[in-house]
Amino acid sequence: MTAVTIQCCAPIAREPLSESDAADLAVMLKAVADPVRLRLLSMIGSHAGGEACVCDLTDAFDLTAPTISHHLKVLRTAGLISGERRGTWVYYRIIPEAVNRLGALFTPLAEPVSA
Amino acid sequence: MTAVTIQCCAPIAREPLSESDAADLAVMLKAVADPVRLRLLSMIGSHAGGEACVCDLTDAFDLTAPTISHHLKVLRTAGLISGERRGTWVYYRIIPEAVNRLGALFTPLAEPVSA
Repeated sequence: MTAVTIQCCAPIAREPLSESDAADLAVMLKAVADPVRLRLLSMIGSHAGGEACVCDLTDAFDLTAPTISHHLKVLRTAGLISGERRGTWVYYRIIPEAVNRLGALFTPLAEPVSA
Repeated sequence: MTAVTIQCCAPIAREPLSESDAADLAVMLKAVADPVRLRLLSMIGSHAGGEACVCDLTDAFDLTAPTISHHLKVLRTAGLISGERRGTWVYYRIIPEAVNRLGALFTPLAEPVSA
């Protein structure tokens, strides 16, 4: 009668995760479980054209360039973003398949499923 | 006038996260960024009626009861599950609003952004 019909529909709430899926997903979630990395990810994803220059990202934080580079490397190693050097700067994009996998883990479907 | 109403519902990909939202979300993500806790969350959510007894959860792992209790406490402290003692056992449920918030974070990021 209350919110139970909503919680039943999230993929995470439909069947138990396998050990190997849980291990994979935990690696990606560890990469995003940091305020700076979350903000970097959202800045890259919301940038015009879906691509952000490391120069723009660094300017947005009160952190050194090496610190930002470290955080970007963590996101890249986890397979969440890709980077391409063009001239002086590296340009970053979200890897949609990886981010979708995280979203699909938590996002409920539109239709309620009875318990 | 057209797709703006859809884009408005995809906050992270359309505008960068604020510092305070990023800090809140990072706390929740740290709680789920662990293979055992991800599996616990999916077991609770997929259990009949959306509720799981701690006794069933403990049996599913090759871990001690205190270790499982620790992981459940982390999920509970992060606001992702609630627990209710009835008789001998504690019964856990997913808190849909919290899980939905994580889903809403990632799903829009994977969508194409117009230049």
